Amino acid sequence: MEVTFLGTSSGVPTRSRNVSSVALRLTQRGEIWLFDCGEGTQHQILRSDLKTSQLKKIFVTHMHGDHIFGLMGLLASCGLGAHAENVEVYGPPGLDAYLKACMKYSQTYFPYGVHFKTVSPGVIYEDDEYIVSTEMLKHRVTAFGYRVSEKDKAGKFDVEKAKKLGIPSGPIYGKLKKGETITLDDGRTINGSQLCGPTEIGRKFVYCTDTVFCESAIALSEDADVLIHEATFAHQDAQMAFERMHSTTTMAAQVALAAQVKKLIMTHFSPRYAPGNPLQLNDLLKEAQAIFPETILAHDFLSYEIPRRIN
Amino acid sequence: MEVTFLGTSSGVPTRSRNVSSVALRLTQRGEIWLFDCGEGTQHQILRSDLKTSQLKKIFVTHMHGDHIFGLMGLLASCGLGAHAENVEVYGPPGLDAYLKACMKYSQTYFPYGVHFKTVSPGVIYEDDEYIVSTEMLKHRVTAFGYRVSEKDKAGKFDVEKAKKLGIPSGPIYGKLKKGETITLDDGRTINGSQLCGPTEIGRKFVYCTDTVFCESAIALSEDADVLIHEATFAHQDAQMAFERMHSTTTMAAQVALAAQVKKLIMTHFSPRYAPGNPLQLNDLLKEAQAIFPETILAHDFLSYEIPRRIN
Ligand SMILES: [Zn+2]
Ligand SMILES: [Zn+2]
Repeated sequence: MEVTFLGTSSGVPTRSRNVSSVALRLTQRGEIWLFDCGEGTQHQILRSDLKTSQLKKIFVTHMHGDHIFGLMGLLASCGLGAHAENVEVYGPPGLDAYLKACMKYSQTYFPYGVHFKTVSPGVIYEDDEYIVSTEMLKHRVTAFGYRVSEKDKAGKFDVEKAKKLGIPSGPIYGKLKKGETITLDDGRTINGSQLCGPTEIGRKFVYCTDTVFCESAIALSEDADVLIHEATFAHQDAQMAFERMHSTTTMAAQVALAAQVKKLIMTHFSPRYAPGNPLQLNDLLKEAQAIFPETILAHDFLSYEIPRRIN
Repeated sequence: MEVTFLGTSSGVPTRSRNVSSVALRLTQRGEIWLFDCGEGTQHQILRSDLKTSQLKKIFVTHMHGDHIFGLMGLLASCGLGAHAENVEVYGPPGLDAYLKACMKYSQTYFPYGVHFKTVSPGVIYEDDEYIVSTEMLKHRVTAFGYRVSEKDKAGKFDVEKAKKLGIPSGPIYGKLKKGETITLDDGRTINGSQLCGPTEIGRKFVYCTDTVFCESAIALSEDADVLIHEATFAHQDAQMAFERMHSTTTMAAQVALAAQVKKLIMTHFSPRYAPGNPLQLNDLLKEAQAIFPETILAHDFLSYEIPRRIN
């Protein structure tokens, strides 16, 4: 699992930061899942080492333009490229109708399947390896945070060790692989977990934007390996954050602390903290680190490989 | 009048060419008029020396995504910036409804006036200095070409010369300035045009995209100082051009030749002619120049100052 930031500015693009989009690469599957798609996301993908042909899912947090205005262009370009695969688009109520209106007026037809799914809090997707769930955040419009959890994988069964112990192969191996305890014909009791490598605990990726501080962000972020949380404002601009229902650095850090995440990556910065201004992003970083030391700042094209967890 | 190309690729952006947009800077007025607004146009403006605060008018040729998907983002960003001025948006039927649907679903409100005007062939705008007219082109959907004509300016009246001739100042000067012939009290006949500098013939800018070869493009381009015409395809790919209702290099050049324009700038190139392909843009240029030597290729950020015409 590797995260790549494609846009880290709030509201408007700047010369160095585009509006919101984050790609999650499921390396082993060769799939890309995208979170938000501000204008110019397809351009950012062109400049990255990501391939749109791997794009399988797009999750949209809310309907503000800086999170959705790149969606039509990206989907249309996938249609003009060599994109044969279907794409699933998850998002809040209205997204489906918005995209259909855009398709109608621009006479855009996708030569592959684009499936719209309106999300509500809870599990919205599950397969053998991943679970995706959402919680409602607290913004001026309906906004969802997303959590992608890798399922735990049983440790690898050590066949050689089993053979050395003289355990006959057959259905018994299946039970031992699951970590069950069995009794052999000769009376020996074997604990399967002792023949298995350590369980690989699944990693958890959480994406919370746009939102002011809220309990549901903490619930969604519980024990996450990486929490991407918006930090539009510096602590001193908290009043603006409350008015516009965005987060400050300290709000983001408090969520990370309360949820006991492993790493906080802040993003969605107001252009008011760009170089040359009295308060700059390094100041914002320090504010957050004072509360949650394992904090870093996102920038466009930052890649972060989520380390595997070994129990 | 200075033209700046902000996007010169057809259909999809590439790493070096964005989708369609051309800015016309009316230098003396400090106004920018934009023609088409593909996704990422606001990003291109950020990278140019153009200022969105000068943006006054946007003319849209047709409703295909690569010409309109940057419109909402640009207008929204103008609203978040220091843009107090109204913007007029001219375009085909449907543009108004498209933008209103986008505004509704994304809950975007512009804190300045955005006025929509649906165009039809003929004069669509006129003031003391400029006339803008359109003609219907020939594309898969309704498409308009645009012509911006500077009005002719009378040559400067030579006051010193008039004084030397002993012509009394007063209302007579007004008539002479207009080039009229007057009779003085002493019986002398004075031709005003002989007291005026040469008339400055207004410049004509024409923008034709997307279209296959058509007579209306020639009519619109008559005597233009600069014709920007799409040339999506090389001559050998004419069949595709007819099928998709785009132009080849030779079609663009034929329009320029028939309309007796001063300069042809080709744009809207298919990515199939990008560096590394068997046929490249320099080949396309040669094809056009064989018919119309005064042809150049557009590239992103190319600026072309339209020379003044002195009679
Ligand atoms: Zn928002
Ligand atoms: Zn078109």
